Amino acid sequence: MQEKVVMMDNTLKTLRHTNKLNDMPASAGPFDGTFDVDKPRDACGIFGILSCDNHDVAQLTYYALFALQHRGQEGAGIAVNDSGTIIYYKDTGLVPEVFNSTILEHLKGRAAIGHVLYTTDIGNRENVQPIVVKYKSGQMAMSYNGNLINTPVLRQKLEEKGAIFQTNNDPELIASLISIYRITSNDIEEAIVKVMEDIKGAYSFVLMTQNKLIAVRDPFGIKPLCLGKLDNSYIVASESSAIDAVGGKLLRDINPGEIVVIQENELRSIQTEVSGKTALCIFEFVYTARQDSYIDGASVYQARLEAGKLLAIEYPVDADLVIGAPDSGLIAALGFSRQSGIPYGSGLIKNRYVGRTFIKPGQSQREMAVRIKFNAIKSEIEGKRIVMVDDSIVRGTTTKSIVHMLKQAGAKEVHIRISSAPYRFPCYFGIDTPSSEHLVASTYTKDEIRDMLGADSLEYLSLEELLKTPIGAKCGFCCGCFTGKYPMDVRCEG
Amino acid sequence: MQEKVVMMDNTLKTLRHTNKLNDMPASAGPFDGTFDVDKPRDACGIFGILSCDNHDVAQLTYYALFALQHRGQEGAGIAVNDSGTIIYYKDTGLVPEVFNSTILEHLKGRAAIGHVLYTTDIGNRENVQPIVVKYKSGQMAMSYNGNLINTPVLRQKLEEKGAIFQTNNDPELIASLISIYRITSNDIEEAIVKVMEDIKGAYSFVLMTQNKLIAVRDPFGIKPLCLGKLDNSYIVASESSAIDAVGGKLLRDINPGEIVVIQENELRSIQTEVSGKTALCIFEFVYTARQDSYIDGASVYQARLEAGKLLAIEYPVDADLVIGAPDSGLIAALGFSRQSGIPYGSGLIKNRYVGRTFIKPGQSQREMAVRIKFNAIKSEIEGKRIVMVDDSIVRGTTTKSIVHMLKQAGAKEVHIRISSAPYRFPCYFGIDTPSSEHLVASTYTKDEIRDMLGADSLEYLSLEELLKTPIGAKCGFCCGCFTGKYPMDVRCEG
Amino acid sequence: MQEKVVMMDNTLKTLRHTNKLNDMPASAGPFDGTFDVDKPRDACGIFGILSCDNHDVAQLTYYALFALQHRGQEGAGIAVNDSGTIIYYKDTGLVPEVFNSTILEHLKGRAAIGHVLYTTDIGNRENVQPIVVKYKSGQMAMSYNGNLINTPVLRQKLEEKGAIFQTNNDPELIASLISIYRITSNDIEEAIVKVMEDIKGAYSFVLMTQNKLIAVRDPFGIKPLCLGKLDNSYIVASESSAIDAVGGKLLRDINPGEIVVIQENELRSIQTEVSGKTALCIFEFVYTARQDSYIDGASVYQARLEAGKLLAIEYPVDADLVIGAPDSGLIAALGFSRQSGIPYGSGLIKNRYVGRTFIKPGQSQREMAVRIKFNAIKSEIEGKRIVMVDDSIVRGTTTKSIVHMLKQAGAKEVHIRISSAPYRFPCYFGIDTPSSEHLVASTYTKDEIRDMLGADSLEYLSLEELLKTPIGAKCGFCCGCFTGKYPMDVRCEG
Amino acid sequence: MQEKVVMMDNTLKTLRHTNKLNDMPASAGPFDGTFDVDKPRDACGIFGILSCDNHDVAQLTYYALFALQHRGQEGAGIAVNDSGTIIYYKDTGLVPEVFNSTILEHLKGRAAIGHVLYTTDIGNRENVQPIVVKYKSGQMAMSYNGNLINTPVLRQKLEEKGAIFQTNNDPELIASLISIYRITSNDIEEAIVKVMEDIKGAYSFVLMTQNKLIAVRDPFGIKPLCLGKLDNSYIVASESSAIDAVGGKLLRDINPGEIVVIQENELRSIQTEVSGKTALCIFEFVYTARQDSYIDGASVYQARLEAGKLLAIEYPVDADLVIGAPDSGLIAALGFSRQSGIPYGSGLIKNRYVGRTFIKPGQSQREMAVRIKFNAIKSEIEGKRIVMVDDSIVRGTTTKSIVHMLKQAGAKEVHIRISSAPYRFPCYFGIDTPSSEHLVASTYTKDEIRDMLGADSLEYLSLEELLKTPIGAKCGFCCGCFTGKYPMDVRCEG
Repeated sequence: MQEKVVMMDNTLKTLRHTNKLNDMPASAGPFDGTFDVDKPRDACGIFGILSCDNHDVAQLTYYALFALQHRGQEGAGIAVNDSGTIIYYKDTGLVPEVFNSTILEHLKGRAAIGHVLYTTDIGNRENVQPIVVKYKSGQMAMSYNGNLINTPVLRQKLEEKGAIFQTNNDPELIASLISIYRITSNDIEEAIVKVMEDIKGAYSFVLMTQNKLIAVRDPFGIKPLCLGKLDNSYIVASESSAIDAVGGKLLRDINPGEIVVIQENELRSIQTEVSGKTALCIFEFVYTARQDSYIDGASVYQARLEAGKLLAIEYPVDADLVIGAPDSGLIAALGFSRQSGIPYGSGLIKNRYVGRTFIKPGQSQREMAVRIKFNAIKSEIEGKRIVMVDDSIVRGTTTKSIVHMLKQAGAKEVHIRISSAPYRFPCYFGIDTPSSEHLVASTYTKDEIRDMLGADSLEYLSLEELLKTPIGAKCGFCCGCFTGKYPMDVRCEG
Repeated sequence: MQEKVVMMDNTLKTLRHTNKLNDMPASAGPFDGTFDVDKPRDACGIFGILSCDNHDVAQLTYYALFALQHRGQEGAGIAVNDSGTIIYYKDTGLVPEVFNSTILEHLKGRAAIGHVLYTTDIGNRENVQPIVVKYKSGQMAMSYNGNLINTPVLRQKLEEKGAIFQTNNDPELIASLISIYRITSNDIEEAIVKVMEDIKGAYSFVLMTQNKLIAVRDPFGIKPLCLGKLDNSYIVASESSAIDAVGGKLLRDINPGEIVVIQENELRSIQTEVSGKTALCIFEFVYTARQDSYIDGASVYQARLEAGKLLAIEYPVDADLVIGAPDSGLIAALGFSRQSGIPYGSGLIKNRYVGRTFIKPGQSQREMAVRIKFNAIKSEIEGKRIVMVDDSIVRGTTTKSIVHMLKQAGAKEVHIRISSAPYRFPCYFGIDTPSSEHLVASTYTKDEIRDMLGADSLEYLSLEELLKTPIGAKCGFCCGCFTGKYPMDVRCEG
Repeated sequence: MQEKVVMMDNTLKTLRHTNKLNDMPASAGPFDGTFDVDKPRDACGIFGILSCDNHDVAQLTYYALFALQHRGQEGAGIAVNDSGTIIYYKDTGLVPEVFNSTILEHLKGRAAIGHVLYTTDIGNRENVQPIVVKYKSGQMAMSYNGNLINTPVLRQKLEEKGAIFQTNNDPELIASLISIYRITSNDIEEAIVKVMEDIKGAYSFVLMTQNKLIAVRDPFGIKPLCLGKLDNSYIVASESSAIDAVGGKLLRDINPGEIVVIQENELRSIQTEVSGKTALCIFEFVYTARQDSYIDGASVYQARLEAGKLLAIEYPVDADLVIGAPDSGLIAALGFSRQSGIPYGSGLIKNRYVGRTFIKPGQSQREMAVRIKFNAIKSEIEGKRIVMVDDSIVRGTTTKSIVHMLKQAGAKEVHIRISSAPYRFPCYFGIDTPSSEHLVASTYTKDEIRDMLGADSLEYLSLEELLKTPIGAKCGFCCGCFTGKYPMDVRCEG
Repeated sequence: MQEKVVMMDNTLKTLRHTNKLNDMPASAGPFDGTFDVDKPRDACGIFGILSCDNHDVAQLTYYALFALQHRGQEGAGIAVNDSGTIIYYKDTGLVPEVFNSTILEHLKGRAAIGHVLYTTDIGNRENVQPIVVKYKSGQMAMSYNGNLINTPVLRQKLEEKGAIFQTNNDPELIASLISIYRITSNDIEEAIVKVMEDIKGAYSFVLMTQNKLIAVRDPFGIKPLCLGKLDNSYIVASESSAIDAVGGKLLRDINPGEIVVIQENELRSIQTEVSGKTALCIFEFVYTARQDSYIDGASVYQARLEAGKLLAIEYPVDADLVIGAPDSGLIAALGFSRQSGIPYGSGLIKNRYVGRTFIKPGQSQREMAVRIKFNAIKSEIEGKRIVMVDDSIVRGTTTKSIVHMLKQAGAKEVHIRISSAPYRFPCYFGIDTPSSEHLVASTYTKDEIRDMLGADSLEYLSLEELLKTPIGAKCGFCCGCFTGKYPMDVRCEG
């Protein structure tokens, strides 16, 4: 089965990559994807507001997108409902690169949705959201986070009836399906319920029509989505950090399978049928979400701290200093330190200026690329036995360079502790991971990896312990990347 | 009836304008549309090539688009067929602003189509062509020039079946229709034939599929489209100037209602049913086309020269110098001079650097804006009775300023001769004209206009004579803007 | 002597080219200098205004620079005197590329100077003017057009006293000299008089101090400079077209060797010693200046028309059509036609969109580059004996391609008539010409050139006749490029 | 005396600000200076290399500038010595914004110097370094960090001899002085020695001539400058982090008053006369330098850790959690935690995407601006007594907002501990600080500030203890900003 799945994965990737030129801007500098290529990458952040309080909705959305920028750096967009007409602006780039004050001033309205894009189709302008379409009942705009696994089947069905597609992305497909079901439905909510019966996969999206704001979360709740209030107005966002950013209050999470309909200052909820076993992506706690967010009742910060503590219990080590790999391992390292009593230190510095347009050294100078991005604090490291905590190992290449750097700085020993289980299987729900042969834990044993990294020891938090870390979470988890067992059949027979 | 038509026109305009933010780039300077706003404006130039000779098809298309740039300055794009996969690049701006050598080098393939955009949705990125879609049979890309008059009806029909639209433009609609008819057709040509039965209006388009290049011209032949050959490969283009630019030879014009299918180095023609009375837009000869082009058998240059001659016969004047309003009146002025024997001179200079980003003087300084764009050659004008020939008068504001400028430069008399008939009615086929109340000839008598312009006399070439100017043309003409009589019912009942 | 001069010329060129990276913008598209590389190129346009009428001086200067843009397309700048403090903005690029409305709004003041740059140091930001310096007496800003021949000697003298230079351009040197002489002078005018005794070459410049606007023209009057009035305020400009553009009136030309000092609404003139024989660059009339300008009393348009007429008298030819090489040969062609009675026609079209960022075809496709830029009007050319008039031949490469194009379009004969004398010698005064070996007339006989060009005949207007063309001019001329005899010793002994 | 000094400070500021338009790029978005405006800001980072090993010197400099980017974000530049000719590229913006791979490839040579700019003349292109000048002995390029206090006097002296200045910056003045002294010196080193007798203030600079690389540090050693080796080649840099970044080894610091001359792979040292009391800016350890750097023998990281420890000893507090204000207070917070035994936590998150082009909320929404930039980790803060450590308080506005945020997140108490002494006096040596009335510690008592901030307690590390923190430092310190006592008379009598 595994092979089949991988093939499908490749097919999907091929589909996503082949039919458009990477839409590089005429003036682009060299791009090398130095943003943490050694980390799994998430797909998108979404936000929506329908204001009853004369807020500047575009400005609020702009600020919210800053708080979600870590979820996607390839594109950003805002659509507003200006007295029934949807106008929008979107482009490739970071939020501050896409928007200026003139544009924001043009985006007037009472409701707005926003989006930050992560995509493997880097720079492909067509994929930037929100997507805005016209259909029988007027206009709708959608911001979407997720990945459907039965896209090919559903597209084929629609194509067989004559539909055309201008992108490869899911929201275009979902908008098409909503439009079709809307013909025979009493309202858009009814159409969405029908669409949810068709689509399989992980998704959270917010839809803005001419008079409603609708938030939808998939029946397994794989992707986060929460509801907040600002004054008398409702807000939805991928993470509570975006609600904080605009000064709102987190009310609750949207439930798996729930459709929340906001109209004026009223809110209705439609709960579609769900299996009962929910499956929030565990990686939101491990890496994806911002540490100040709360997801499904649990604090991301506390989860990471707890992971560090449990790791110290499960795999103690006699050492002099605990450090985190910046920035993803810092909180867990703190937890490890608190639990173990080994002092916490800031042993590595990360250069904040190395970004998309950084010109990488040639192949023969791999070490230099890491050296510019990271540096060891020799005075802290020298002569010590180091525990270095990180959240995960994907390819392992950066980790290897960092271990080497620590040893050169005088570390007597380097013990790696990973605050999650070995990352061994592909994600079908929107986390971009390399194919299995590049997942080091998929191919090598723990001892082999330790030796490859040049570390003195290497341990992973067990899955059993990891699942205890989102303290107070009111949901189950998808751990497919650790176990190969997914909440639904990912073979995509439709 | 007239009112009804105008209302529809407004409806169309509203549709075209309201549902997207003018997609201004974050870094745009001020835009004021100084490109000849006092002239009717055309809609788009198209080009296609399927090479059997290892040409660099993207580069050739790039050069061809330079030769078509006068047809549209708001956007440009090229799509290539790279071994069955269509890749493309397009953006708002002039051809040299959109493309650089890196982008061109990425656009490898055996076939290519290109497009230059004119649109009233200035800066709206979504409208830039070619449009590229995926449908049941794979991919197709389309470059389109024209305007359908039954768009709302057709969109409504599709929307009632659940179709969504991401733009307001015709090619998206046509691609949808092709896709739907393709389901029940043996090949794409058959689908196109069916589509042509549905759509009403003026259109020329070139379609690139994974193995074909298909050129289509509407049954009235309102928009030009011609066929050429470069080595052993076929080319299609809006104007023969583009064929010249790439070193090709003009074979013939695509016939009204003809579908030309190019596959490898073979060409098939499908002639759909036509009414018999063809109706090429007469304005192509008056203003739109480049003077070195041949359309439907007639030379644009000769037509303009002839118009000047006939004008001199129809409305002679006793004068000392014939000048043309640069650049649109220059050739007709030459014809007037040759016929009348009055010397031809270059009495006005036009500043080539005044373009899109020119910062206009304030309202109170209208004269200055004209003065920067034009200047009179005092030494040529002073003390003379001037005949100034122009191709048309739309609003008349620039003409008025120029007459004033000539008088200030010492002209004793200024006699305006227009090488076409009074422009009095809206165009429904893609020429952007102001609404009737701004069409000076629609509201005022010839004498009133003459007085408003401050001219000593004003005469228009009669339509009867104008129709004689495309010498050798093998087609009839649409003169709707002069007569209000259109080749088809424009009331859009469907 | 010639060799020595050429060597010096090369030395100068080397100096100008070697010590700075061509300062290409990070986002620059490919640059290939397609702006008429086959034409001699001028160096810069200057403008200044000191307003007593509350004009928006920056805006007026902006418009004036549009009217001077033909004199330099590589950079533009404006400096204003804001209550005694000089602020400025300048950058590489065309006027509309450099300025936007925000920048113009910041440039408030009562006086302004502007500059458009032509330079062989393409894209070198340091050379963009106005140059603004601080010295003992405060600030001064300078816009300069010209070329000194004793720059190395003067720089060396200053360097020996410890001066540093941040550019290679003349205005920095002149500002240094003014600053030094100012120490021992009563006022800046006195310093300028002393500087004019030191510097040798061609120059016109306008200087803005904290309370004055000073215009200076070299003792030979090689570069043009004229004085105008707008309301109660004085203006100076390289060409009268700039005075027209802002709605001003041409008062007179600045005299050779004259220093005009404008303070409030008063004007003083200081006439420095001159030899008596003045030497305006004849090429201003042949090619450089805009046809609507008047220089030293003569109309540029009339001069070109006259050149065509005299050419028709001196070298008549039996032919069917006279055409001009666009745009530089058009007026002379008209003159030739009027004199000869042979009809004038518009036989060649020039593509207005081919500019700096045009991507040239490869070496093997030279013909294509010309074909995209020019096209023959076949219907006008076919079967005719053509007289093609151009202003000059420098390298001859474009001319050759055009002759070929005309023959392909069916011309029976092509007779080339050049409205100036053979261009055989380098210019030392700021007109950028190729080295002698690339000046076709310097190496080959007229018959050889004719054959190389593929023409049926080739004739040049004699210098004797050419000198008659600036009708009414109140000055002598520098014809060094035709004769090798310059108004001063160019061997640069100091 | 204080008043007088402040006035001079204002005079200096006025000089620096008034005579140039802030050179904003035509396409700039809104700028609001959100980069830590509440922190003192440093002035510039410098780097130089003379390679004997065929390094790509421009590429190495590019990487080194990334490691120095924290010292200046307004401009960047690199100059290389290409076989005796200096070529360069520089512009406003961050290192990755200024350079692309094409530019780097053009910068070939054996030696290179680089610069990152901090300036209060934000965006002023003229100030971007390296400055490159031509003088009697050829070319020289300079990268400079510092501030002279006798600039006006020295400039006046030179201006009285006729010198002109094109900028207001020190390196232009120093280059002028070198050039003048070079006339009467045997070599450039001798000239530099003389210049060092004239100039007073803080400075480190690196000079590249046609065959030498020369590093100079002021007699008090106020600005850091260190020497490294990469293979057989010498490197100089503002901080050792830049030496690490390129893979080099730190040899030693340049001594106060030392001139280091590198030629081929040889190094000579000239020690000019110094007073004996050296005065490195203590703020390098407190805030400016990167934590992985070593300056004058001390580790920046250890100094900050020690400051936290001493603070915990000097001002202990009974609390539940120690947090640092990100990022400047993090290391000291760690030290405080280690010493006090109170757990360290990550209580505040800082948004990495808020940068120069961030559009700030309106005045009435000050809280929101802070909320987007920072967020409290509620789960860590709630119900706890917090010690928040920061490096300094300048205006105090951001600190106030953060205290408010912590209290809202449920902090029971907030105790502020500052790891340096009260910042009360202006810096005359290049650290940009607000005028005294905006320095909160200059106007208010500690108790008043505590109340203004809404904190439960506020304590500063005493200067006595602070001076113990750079453990192992081989230098004295300038503590002028804390004491108002400067290593030299700053009244600038000359």
